[in-house]
Amino acid sequence: MTFTSDWLENLGDARDDAARAQSIFKLHESYTHFTRGYQMDAGKIIQDGLMPAGAAAGQIITIAPIPFYSLCEHHLLPFFGTAEITYTAGDHILGLGKFPKLVEALSARLNLQEGLTAAVYDALHENLRPKNLSVSLEARHLCLDMRQGGITGTLLKTVKNA
Amino acid sequence: MTFTSDWLENLGDARDDAARAQSIFKLHESYTHFTRGYQMDAGKIIQDGLMPAGAAAGQIITIAPIPFYSLCEHHLLPFFGTAEITYTAGDHILGLGKFPKLVEALSARLNLQEGLTAAVYDALHENLRPKNLSVSLEARHLCLDMRQGGITGTLLKTVKNA
Amino acid sequence: MTFTSDWLENLGDARDDAARAQSIFKLHESYTHFTRGYQMDAGKIIQDGLMPAGAAAGQIITIAPIPFYSLCEHHLLPFFGTAEITYTAGDHILGLGKFPKLVEALSARLNLQEGLTAAVYDALHENLRPKNLSVSLEARHLCLDMRQGGITGTLLKTVKNA
Amino acid sequence: MTFTSDWLENLGDARDDAARAQSIFKLHESYTHFTRGYQMDAGKIIQDGLMPAGAAAGQIITIAPIPFYSLCEHHLLPFFGTAEITYTAGDHILGLGKFPKLVEALSARLNLQEGLTAAVYDALHENLRPKNLSVSLEARHLCLDMRQGGITGTLLKTVKNA
Amino acid sequence: MTFTSDWLENLGDARDDAARAQSIFKLHESYTHFTRGYQMDAGKIIQDGLMPAGAAAGQIITIAPIPFYSLCEHHLLPFFGTAEITYTAGDHILGLGKFPKLVEALSARLNLQEGLTAAVYDALHENLRPKNLSVSLEARHLCLDMRQGGITGTLLKTVKNA
Amino acid sequence: MTFTSDWLENLGDARDDAARAQSIFKLHESYTHFTRGYQMDAGKIIQDGLMPAGAAAGQIITIAPIPFYSLCEHHLLPFFGTAEITYTAGDHILGLGKFPKLVEALSARLNLQEGLTAAVYDALHENLRPKNLSVSLEARHLCLDMRQGGITGTLLKTVKNA
Amino acid sequence: MTFTSDWLENLGDARDDAARAQSIFKLHESYTHFTRGYQMDAGKIIQDGLMPAGAAAGQIITIAPIPFYSLCEHHLLPFFGTAEITYTAGDHILGLGKFPKLVEALSARLNLQEGLTAAVYDALHENLRPKNLSVSLEARHLCLDMRQGGITGTLLKTVKNA
Amino acid sequence: MTFTSDWLENLGDARDDAARAQSIFKLHESYTHFTRGYQMDAGKIIQDGLMPAGAAAGQIITIAPIPFYSLCEHHLLPFFGTAEITYTAGDHILGLGKFPKLVEALSARLNLQEGLTAAVYDALHENLRPKNLSVSLEARHLCLDMRQGGITGTLLKTVKNA
Amino acid sequence: MTFTSDWLENLGDARDDAARAQSIFKLHESYTHFTRGYQMDAGKIIQDGLMPAGAAAGQIITIAPIPFYSLCEHHLLPFFGTAEITYTAGDHILGLGKFPKLVEALSARLNLQEGLTAAVYDALHENLRPKNLSVSLEARHLCLDMRQGGITGTLLKTVKNA
Amino acid sequence: MTFTSDWLENLGDARDDAARAQSIFKLHESYTHFTRGYQMDAGKIIQDGLMPAGAAAGQIITIAPIPFYSLCEHHLLPFFGTAEITYTAGDHILGLGKFPKLVEALSARLNLQEGLTAAVYDALHENLRPKNLSVSLEARHLCLDMRQGGITGTLLKTVKNA
Repeated sequence: MTFTSDWLENLGDARDDAARAQSIFKLHESYTHFTRGYQMDAGKIIQDGLMPAGAAAGQIITIAPIPFYSLCEHHLLPFFGTAEITYTAGDHILGLGKFPKLVEALSARLNLQEGLTAAVYDALHENLRPKNLSVSLEARHLCLDMRQGGITGTLLKTVKNA
Repeated sequence: MTFTSDWLENLGDARDDAARAQSIFKLHESYTHFTRGYQMDAGKIIQDGLMPAGAAAGQIITIAPIPFYSLCEHHLLPFFGTAEITYTAGDHILGLGKFPKLVEALSARLNLQEGLTAAVYDALHENLRPKNLSVSLEARHLCLDMRQGGITGTLLKTVKNA
Repeated sequence: MTFTSDWLENLGDARDDAARAQSIFKLHESYTHFTRGYQMDAGKIIQDGLMPAGAAAGQIITIAPIPFYSLCEHHLLPFFGTAEITYTAGDHILGLGKFPKLVEALSARLNLQEGLTAAVYDALHENLRPKNLSVSLEARHLCLDMRQGGITGTLLKTVKNA
Repeated sequence: MTFTSDWLENLGDARDDAARAQSIFKLHESYTHFTRGYQMDAGKIIQDGLMPAGAAAGQIITIAPIPFYSLCEHHLLPFFGTAEITYTAGDHILGLGKFPKLVEALSARLNLQEGLTAAVYDALHENLRPKNLSVSLEARHLCLDMRQGGITGTLLKTVKNA
Repeated sequence: MTFTSDWLENLGDARDDAARAQSIFKLHESYTHFTRGYQMDAGKIIQDGLMPAGAAAGQIITIAPIPFYSLCEHHLLPFFGTAEITYTAGDHILGLGKFPKLVEALSARLNLQEGLTAAVYDALHENLRPKNLSVSLEARHLCLDMRQGGITGTLLKTVKNA
Repeated sequence: MTFTSDWLENLGDARDDAARAQSIFKLHESYTHFTRGYQMDAGKIIQDGLMPAGAAAGQIITIAPIPFYSLCEHHLLPFFGTAEITYTAGDHILGLGKFPKLVEALSARLNLQEGLTAAVYDALHENLRPKNLSVSLEARHLCLDMRQGGITGTLLKTVKNA
Repeated sequence: MTFTSDWLENLGDARDDAARAQSIFKLHESYTHFTRGYQMDAGKIIQDGLMPAGAAAGQIITIAPIPFYSLCEHHLLPFFGTAEITYTAGDHILGLGKFPKLVEALSARLNLQEGLTAAVYDALHENLRPKNLSVSLEARHLCLDMRQGGITGTLLKTVKNA
Repeated sequence: MTFTSDWLENLGDARDDAARAQSIFKLHESYTHFTRGYQMDAGKIIQDGLMPAGAAAGQIITIAPIPFYSLCEHHLLPFFGTAEITYTAGDHILGLGKFPKLVEALSARLNLQEGLTAAVYDALHENLRPKNLSVSLEARHLCLDMRQGGITGTLLKTVKNA
Repeated sequence: MTFTSDWLENLGDARDDAARAQSIFKLHESYTHFTRGYQMDAGKIIQDGLMPAGAAAGQIITIAPIPFYSLCEHHLLPFFGTAEITYTAGDHILGLGKFPKLVEALSARLNLQEGLTAAVYDALHENLRPKNLSVSLEARHLCLDMRQGGITGTLLKTVKNA
Repeated sequence: MTFTSDWLENLGDARDDAARAQSIFKLHESYTHFTRGYQMDAGKIIQDGLMPAGAAAGQIITIAPIPFYSLCEHHLLPFFGTAEITYTAGDHILGLGKFPKLVEALSARLNLQEGLTAAVYDALHENLRPKNLSVSLEARHLCLDMRQGGITGTLLKTVKNA
């Protein structure tokens, strides 16, 4: 099963072959970009940004909102929204710039939102080892929105904490 | 160039072949759905809903917001937002339910937003023949949002009137 | 074609005959209430509330929002929203309490919104004889909302002025 | 007791017989549409969308707002609003697209809001078997709004959880 | 001590006797209307709307906002605002339309807000017998607002629950 | 026609005679307060606050919102809201503190809102002699609100300018 | 150390002696007004407004926002904001109109906000004897705002409860 | 006429002489600070920040909001709010940092708001020589607020343009 | 004049030499990044994205908000905000993705905001040749904010159109 | 490694040497200003503002928002936002004006936000000795914002309490 110029023409696209081929090329490029996270190592991102907690030990630290885009692994359609990460510092804190990188590394893949939430949680749990940790994601899913008529405004919110 | 299970595996998707094939199947279904407008006749939608203006002649009539989803013809990625249609009634008015249908028929195709704006305008101009007409669309484009980091919030607004 | 207990049972309503008959009775009562405006005389409502303009002559007077409920004459389903009436006082002004009464008398009928807008405008134009007059209505139509999936949020706005 | 052209004429509708008959026909069509949920199997919708929880086990998952339209079983008039569903994943999670379907299947029937709330709760409780579950609905009832003068803004909120 | 035409003239009203008498007549009519609740039986309103709880048993049910107008028994001046009623269903639930009726029956009297709150609470407690019950009212009092200069914005909120 | 203790008892007030008499006494006090404006001289208020415009000549000066309370001369019930006054300074400006005083002097009387608007306008026009002047009032009328069920939210806005 | 015409001239005020003297006179008048609370008896205000709680016993009663103006006893500059008072009724309730009077009596003095909070609390605690009591004040202090550049927006909130 | 410790004691301040003297000392310090603008040269501030317009010629440039504090020259009480300055660049533009300095230099004096507006306008008109210029100030006056009961929320807006 | 470890130590930074040197290194990296626009060719960005206007000719097209960051050429401190670009299509339209690129290319340099506004305008004017064009920027300048105490909230808005 | 005119020229700055040198001079001045807190003694600021708690003992006192600007010690780039301080008064309270001074003294240095939070907390804990204390900071970091494309809106919130 393929995205071909013929297939687009069949759907009703009246542009010439070259235009259709060019669009399919760009679509491939886009999906390659949207899955760039597979080339990123979440654990290493955290390890590179660890600092001794020092005076920060015991502080409650929240980073939010962290915008993200991901692809629904069921429909290969985008879902996007924001993450919120809260932790109580143990022996280490993590440099601020690493949180968006971590979320990017794990969201720029094929995901269920529930799996993405767990992946962010687990990477932080194992590498940062905070006293408490909560990861919550809230997102709009085009596989839901575009296949229904109208606007549902329905968001999926997933929370993992301990 | 194709969306194949191999290609997904290459990008980094670690699921088994069946899961990947199933996702690609759903993606094809989705794109068929997103282009269902090619099977709809914008002119006929309007013609079927025309009513003599009667007491409505000369009234300024606005229908908004009309949500829509479309596919960017350059990247085959979704753009979505709302349309606002305002006209001054001439000899006819159009049944309220026809406006969302018209916008659906023309947006569920491959489009540039500028072209979609013109298509809605032209279909109404030719078939409804209002005294004045303004069509404006405001949308968020994933080809812009997902390829940049962060959130731009950038919207494209296009207006055609006369 | 009728609303009968059998018909409801056929649609899937599993309640007993008495419950279904009772509901149909209440529905008839409701529709009688929703069309009570036919028993009201818009012109007389205005005539009863006219007062010499005196110091008010030339003032720009706005009454808004005036909530209303009406029945779509195409689908016999409710549409509802608010009216805004603005006039420049000529020889007379109209008592504040008459505006909601006038809107009730004309909206509690079977209507197209465009026709309702004209009816309110015309009743005021003929009986109050203001220097300027603008009547605008903005409403949500269940015939549109309930027959589509999701929430469209689409409103119809109609304006008649001179 | 029936909705007939005569009955509408009696209420005050001055249109001709054909227009009135056409409207009654559309009203019947609408009510058939509003009760389409009787043809849908809530349990099966859930069963078809179950997935092993995997990494999602123990996560708190919220889907909201889910818009719905229903008919009040007392007055056969619409009530509409939004549902919010929150559960803690046990052995399974439910695909995102199934939640709006489930709510549609149960709301597109004759309902009391309290009964609809219980029906959504029970269907999820029995088929998804989550660790915790909360279902809450908030809606505007036309049987209340349209029978009073003015705008009450009154909403009914019902919550079932355990 | 009376509201007479002379008394109004004394205060400074320069209209003729007939106009003043007409206003006093309307004021009496208004106060008769504002105290119509004395002719309504709160207990009977509830008893007429009781339904077996069935699937609703144990649900948390909130009806709000319920607008009300009342007269301060100290100054005979209006106070007005909204009520919020929340109960956990025991053996019965109460039809939605009865809540505004109940609030009207008890507020369209001479009241202290604290007494009105208790009256609504007690009527529900005795007749509906819910598992839990909370009644809260929030209102603006003209006896406070109009006797001070400026705008205070001060609201009185009263809550009775158990 | 009088507000007597008997009359209140007749309406349904179950308090003893003394309590009812006390309330009627307070009501009379209140109405005397609400009509205190008859003892105030609008023209003198302005004359006392005039200052040569100097550097302010030609400036556009707006004072808003100015809260006010008044009594509807038809129903003797309160209406209240805010005034906005804008003028272009001619030879004089008016001290800021005089504007609320002026509005108080003219609103603490029996009024139609249209008449009150004109009275504020005329007092400023004659005594301040600005180059341009606009007076607009927006108010909620209890004679409208309390006699209808529910909440209409309807406001009356009146504008006089030249 | 004095506010004299010479002193103002020294600061840079170029007006004539009479204008400067007049301003200093008005400033003295203002400060006399701002400290009028010293002539008011907080305890007596409460005692005059006590009523047996009756049906209000055990209700949670909140009066807010209550605007106030005070003078900072350190800098003699204004601070102003709103008070919120919540109590659970014991044997007595307090008439609504007494709360703003009480706050006025204690705020129209030289105060630290912390001391003013305690004074309001103590006066109610001793004279109203509620079951629970919470007094909170939130205010903007000109001694802070005007001595810094820019706008800080900093508010001081003080809460005393038991 | 003076602010003395005796005078404060007379008003009702029960603190000891030293505390009262200290407060009066701080009040004098504050007023010296509030009139620091007399030591600043508005013209020089602008001259020091002029730059050739270059590519900016003909641009419409707005700087807002610029917060300011001033003393009312009638009551010596604070008024404060924000300024908005818009100009069309002629031969020169003015460095951004100079606008708040200019507003500070002219507002930290004794002023009527109308005079302050003119002073800012004139300084820019003479020294920057823009093609168009508009200066508008919006402020809250404590001489108005604190001398009335309640909260008026009244703002004074003054605009000078050409 | 240099940013050296000694200089930081002098200012008060108590970290060791290595930490200070590392920070200075990162600061240099940052400034290199902030001036990356010098390596980008604004004209070429537009030329690469031109498309024949076709049906878009005469449409009014707005792209906003486009976030940007720049360095103030006077203080080398950041200023940042959003741009809004509106044009009426002539013979060509510009691909949506080019607008943020264009703004990035010109803002990631040392700029006065007025100069940046002109640069964006001129690049579009020369290369896109629209019928009408308006470029407006609104930004917060740290050279203003950080050097004053408190928060001014002052924004600079610059508009160039024709 | 230095900020030299050559280095700026290398980056692409086309201005002449004098302009570049002038900018670097201003940048040095700015950084000296941004680190002025090293010359301020946080403990002494608190000690100077202590007052016996008196009637304030046991009150919950909140000062917020307190705006601050700081420099990230990793990148030497600004971060800025607001602090909120809440304490329960023990034997002493702290004068309102000292809180912004304290925050300024500690933020006008090189900081990690976590370290700054601890520093404010510790200074208050040691010198004010409150019964409870909570310090929370919320800020936007340019090292994060300016190095990513687009706008992330990401804030870091840090809380230390006990």
